[in-house]
Amino acid sequence: MRLAVIGAGAVGRSVVELADEYGHEVVAVADSSSAVVADAETGSGVDAEVVVTRKAEAGVVGDDDPEDALAADYDALVEATPTTLGDAEPGFSHVRTALERDRHAVLANKGPVAERYGDLQALVADNAGGVRFEATVGGAIPAVSTVEDIEPGHVTAVRGVLNGTANFILTRMAAEGLDYEHVLAEAQDLGVAEADPSFDVDGTDAALKCVILANVLSFGAADDPADAREFTLADADVEGIRDIPGSTLRLAAEDGRTVRLIGEATGETVRVAPRLVHENGTLAVSGTQNIVQIETSHAGRLNISGRGAGGPETASAVLGDVGRLG
Amino acid sequence: MRLAVIGAGAVGRSVVELADEYGHEVVAVADSSSAVVADAETGSGVDAEVVVTRKAEAGVVGDDDPEDALAADYDALVEATPTTLGDAEPGFSHVRTALERDRHAVLANKGPVAERYGDLQALVADNAGGVRFEATVGGAIPAVSTVEDIEPGHVTAVRGVLNGTANFILTRMAAEGLDYEHVLAEAQDLGVAEADPSFDVDGTDAALKCVILANVLSFGAADDPADAREFTLADADVEGIRDIPGSTLRLAAEDGRTVRLIGEATGETVRVAPRLVHENGTLAVSGTQNIVQIETSHAGRLNISGRGAGGPETASAVLGDVGRLG
Repeated sequence: MRLAVIGAGAVGRSVVELADEYGHEVVAVADSSSAVVADAETGSGVDAEVVVTRKAEAGVVGDDDPEDALAADYDALVEATPTTLGDAEPGFSHVRTALERDRHAVLANKGPVAERYGDLQALVADNAGGVRFEATVGGAIPAVSTVEDIEPGHVTAVRGVLNGTANFILTRMAAEGLDYEHVLAEAQDLGVAEADPSFDVDGTDAALKCVILANVLSFGAADDPADAREFTLADADVEGIRDIPGSTLRLAAEDGRTVRLIGEATGETVRVAPRLVHENGTLAVSGTQNIVQIETSHAGRLNISGRGAGGPETASAVLGDVGRLG
Repeated sequence: MRLAVIGAGAVGRSVVELADEYGHEVVAVADSSSAVVADAETGSGVDAEVVVTRKAEAGVVGDDDPEDALAADYDALVEATPTTLGDAEPGFSHVRTALERDRHAVLANKGPVAERYGDLQALVADNAGGVRFEATVGGAIPAVSTVEDIEPGHVTAVRGVLNGTANFILTRMAAEGLDYEHVLAEAQDLGVAEADPSFDVDGTDAALKCVILANVLSFGAADDPADAREFTLADADVEGIRDIPGSTLRLAAEDGRTVRLIGEATGETVRVAPRLVHENGTLAVSGTQNIVQIETSHAGRLNISGRGAGGPETASAVLGDVGRLG
């Protein structure tokens, strides 16, 4: 497939670098201020190495306008711009442009899937292309496609550890007996936490992922999309990890337990909160690992753990989606 | 899809019972001596409850001949007869009949996929239908489809605990400090082990699953199937758990370890043997749980654990495959 990659952060760049290995061709790349588009007439394509180097050295991906990438002749658009809430722009419009042109769209950007799932499904219904978004939930973990394969009507709940930064902090607090502020500073030094860590430590990121899963469950189980309940971040009950004292983790450890930030989605509720889990239990993944537990009607509980973030890991999920659409 | 279910053991019966819930219709069921086939003219279908009750009470599924089920008007044949080695008959011929009629085939029977993978792929290449076999590896765990989604060329190895009976025995030996023979007798009482446990405790069952995974990796990564290496049970290096003394588990426990029967497949090797693993590590699943670890080129390691056996669990995998073929 010919890909237009919108967004040149870690995920977008990894998609550009790995596409060829998955048998796809990148015909356009855009960041917020520039683009590079393959020239169909001269046959000159987009050189992954040139794009990535130029982005690193000059802060742009090419000499074209970002709009040119949206207008390029691609089969699938990869939306990998930063997640925005509310109207989920400009990501939503990028996806709409692709679908209205009867092309496919693959999202790594959580905004449109968490905040405008109904609008997205309406666009899919009205046009020929498909939409996939495995990369929005749990990085390399195939959460969405596994739920789809089991079929949403046979999944009663999906829960798990869906934010590596919060999990890293909780793991270190428990292992070293340190307080939140101390471990946060360490995580920031290591690049595991952002300068403003709110999105991760307040549970917003995990909540967006659970909202997406709730939408998959709700729309997937409904006979008619009009009957499905649509979820947005506003429907999520969210509590973060800022206020967990080190003493709580010490107390938990005395009882063979620890604390994890657990998100849970059903077709009716979304909740993210710190919860006590068994120290050596399945949910107690360490460091930046993520885990997803899928509760099924007929096949018991399925646990999938792996790397929940990272450029190549998330790009693998994007390229898996491209393969499924091909 | 209209299904013909060949084999009326635990898996076949569960497929018959659950098909309707997954939106499919059972038009024929056969066991080794009888069959029931829907009558297209009168519109009378196959009643799941009647079939299952008759099988339990009278040992037959209906008044028709097994051959009638193979000749029925189905879209997909479900091969759920017991696994046989070598020529993998009669399962292989059932699948061939379906494919030569340009129908799909879904296998829960490991024989044809482990022993005659090349023949199976040749039939798929020459006919219109597809073949899937998720249920042959790890019950409810989506091992095969996850490898396919990642793409076999990007998977360097697949390993895991793939036999619940052997794992139950090792778990109990470690937990209770008992010897193999004692725990085996207990497992037989509980119905977790067969009267003749060889297939499970000698590693044959785990090896067949690894052979199947090796074939998926080898054929999936090859540009031309003619270049792919075909694996059979004869290519597997297999060691079971009969000879593990209780003292080994006690010694391992002193060092925070335990023993698990680990199978591993790459595109070049298949090996099954008892191995030391960390007591609380990912591979140390308990009881009859199974786990599959997938090593990827770009997305790190993915762990999937869940129920590795059981009628409804395995039937869910079968019906997931039917969905993927639809």
